[in-house]
Amino acid sequence: MAVYTEVSDEELFAFLQAYDLGPVLSFKGIAEGVENSNFMLHTQSGYYFLTLYEKRVREEDLPFFLGLMFHLSERGITCPQPVKNRAGEVLGRLAGRPAAIVTFLEGMSPRRPDATQCAQVGEMAARLHRAGKGFSLHRKNALSLAGWRPLYEASAPRADDVVPGLRSVLEHELKFQEKHFPTDLPGGVIHADLFPDNVFFLDGVCSGIIDFYFACNDAFAYELAICLNAWCFEPDASFNMTKGMALLAGYERVRRLDPRERDALPILARGSALRFLLTRLVDWLNVPAGALVKPKDPMEYMRKLRFHQKVASAREFGLAA
Amino acid sequence: MAVYTEVSDEELFAFLQAYDLGPVLSFKGIAEGVENSNFMLHTQSGYYFLTLYEKRVREEDLPFFLGLMFHLSERGITCPQPVKNRAGEVLGRLAGRPAAIVTFLEGMSPRRPDATQCAQVGEMAARLHRAGKGFSLHRKNALSLAGWRPLYEASAPRADDVVPGLRSVLEHELKFQEKHFPTDLPGGVIHADLFPDNVFFLDGVCSGIIDFYFACNDAFAYELAICLNAWCFEPDASFNMTKGMALLAGYERVRRLDPRERDALPILARGSALRFLLTRLVDWLNVPAGALVKPKDPMEYMRKLRFHQKVASAREFGLAA
Repeated sequence: MAVYTEVSDEELFAFLQAYDLGPVLSFKGIAEGVENSNFMLHTQSGYYFLTLYEKRVREEDLPFFLGLMFHLSERGITCPQPVKNRAGEVLGRLAGRPAAIVTFLEGMSPRRPDATQCAQVGEMAARLHRAGKGFSLHRKNALSLAGWRPLYEASAPRADDVVPGLRSVLEHELKFQEKHFPTDLPGGVIHADLFPDNVFFLDGVCSGIIDFYFACNDAFAYELAICLNAWCFEPDASFNMTKGMALLAGYERVRRLDPRERDALPILARGSALRFLLTRLVDWLNVPAGALVKPKDPMEYMRKLRFHQKVASAREFGLAA
Repeated sequence: MAVYTEVSDEELFAFLQAYDLGPVLSFKGIAEGVENSNFMLHTQSGYYFLTLYEKRVREEDLPFFLGLMFHLSERGITCPQPVKNRAGEVLGRLAGRPAAIVTFLEGMSPRRPDATQCAQVGEMAARLHRAGKGFSLHRKNALSLAGWRPLYEASAPRADDVVPGLRSVLEHELKFQEKHFPTDLPGGVIHADLFPDNVFFLDGVCSGIIDFYFACNDAFAYELAICLNAWCFEPDASFNMTKGMALLAGYERVRRLDPRERDALPILARGSALRFLLTRLVDWLNVPAGALVKPKDPMEYMRKLRFHQKVASAREFGLAA
């Protein structure tokens, strides 16, 4: 949670001159998101979400993220829709940062998702994969296989300070992934960060998806691997097979996995566990003094990785034959 | 800015069982306030503000604060109105903290108030003083004269680390105040923290007052002294006489100051500058590692104190004869 950049009323009023949203009624910094500064904006025409993009987001990626939200929302995926200013642009500058306004999405993120919610997120992921077709921009996944070794190099020297033995776990898994990570799977646009934080529910029904700032082109099954990690483990690190079955069946109700994807799922699950283990470890080792954000515990993903290393087939995740 | 306590969806749903607000549509931590954790709550029946009271607020003071908001809003002061649950109570418990829901107030705090806004806050302060009459609860101002020496004792040993010479400035002013601080002025309920952060405007017109968590019984003129400090100085620490005149005239349009109050104003202005200098200094010296909140610069109030030490009469603030 953080608001890294404060915005004065004068700066806001000047920025909104370019929009047709009417007078401002309220404007509050939101304590969520770790990458950007987010504000809830209420104007005479409704509720909006205003984001200032901080340095962790590359400015050249913004057209991809904002364009994708447009593309998806036009194709029936409920997600924040960028608001155009009078010049037809969705990206402006506010308080020295790139800034955009999107529509405000109602809903609550589940703290402890149940199997029904897992089924819905699976289905939503498949619908998103289908809706992403025809989106004209491309963005490489900077946090896929090629990105892992630099993260490993950056964190390995101090990994054992976090947990003794972690460095060798990382090294072993990275070598395994460099040998076996599949590269020829069906793919397209994926969200790449479909954690419960980013999926909203209202009255038990999935009401939308937010935070597209890791979205990229990658294997569809890799998204599913991320979801298995993010939605189907219990707080004690045990894998909940009922949730796994629900999530995978939900996905397959919309898009069937092909045999290569089914075979690749255990390796992808290990790979995505390694990805979050590495990024969390790097964040953990680099918390600045006086940080506004408490980093997430990397060990959660170490335990998930350990689980996946023993998995032989996607059936162990609950995938139907 | 801070959200000290996270609230899960399950905890929130359980808490709201006791209220008649309908299903939750959204719930966001707000990056404002340094004392408590604040959330914006949208339910089917409207927008609300939910506060979890953290340890800096004494639980036994909450009936005073919440009761006062009720009392004032019934008497025409626009401020958040506590929402009663089905049992008729305004104070509950959530995530292990005392918690209350209040109505959401629209408006924007001015970053750089102009003279028109100063006039309105003066008028609002006087209306608040009048509306507070008849409120049955009492609360001593813990941050008036008697509270300053303990703050001085706590911060004096390290004061010169912040600015060389600060300790002797504090010591001299504290002795002066202990000798001259007036104790027999007209008084009643005051807000005691009427900073621009806590006053909302819509379209140039004052739309309400928030954050009553320093409210107490004290001299009315002491409130005015706080306002002069908070509203009438420029960023370069110069006193803006036009703003001072506007603020004092705004106040007197509703409630005339009596001669004792007029005479006391320079001492009260010094006293209130000392109060904020001391509390900010204590906060500055006690920032915990990894703090979520950046403390405010105590030196701003050192410069204001220096100004007031040279003031001989309230006419120098712009008070009309």
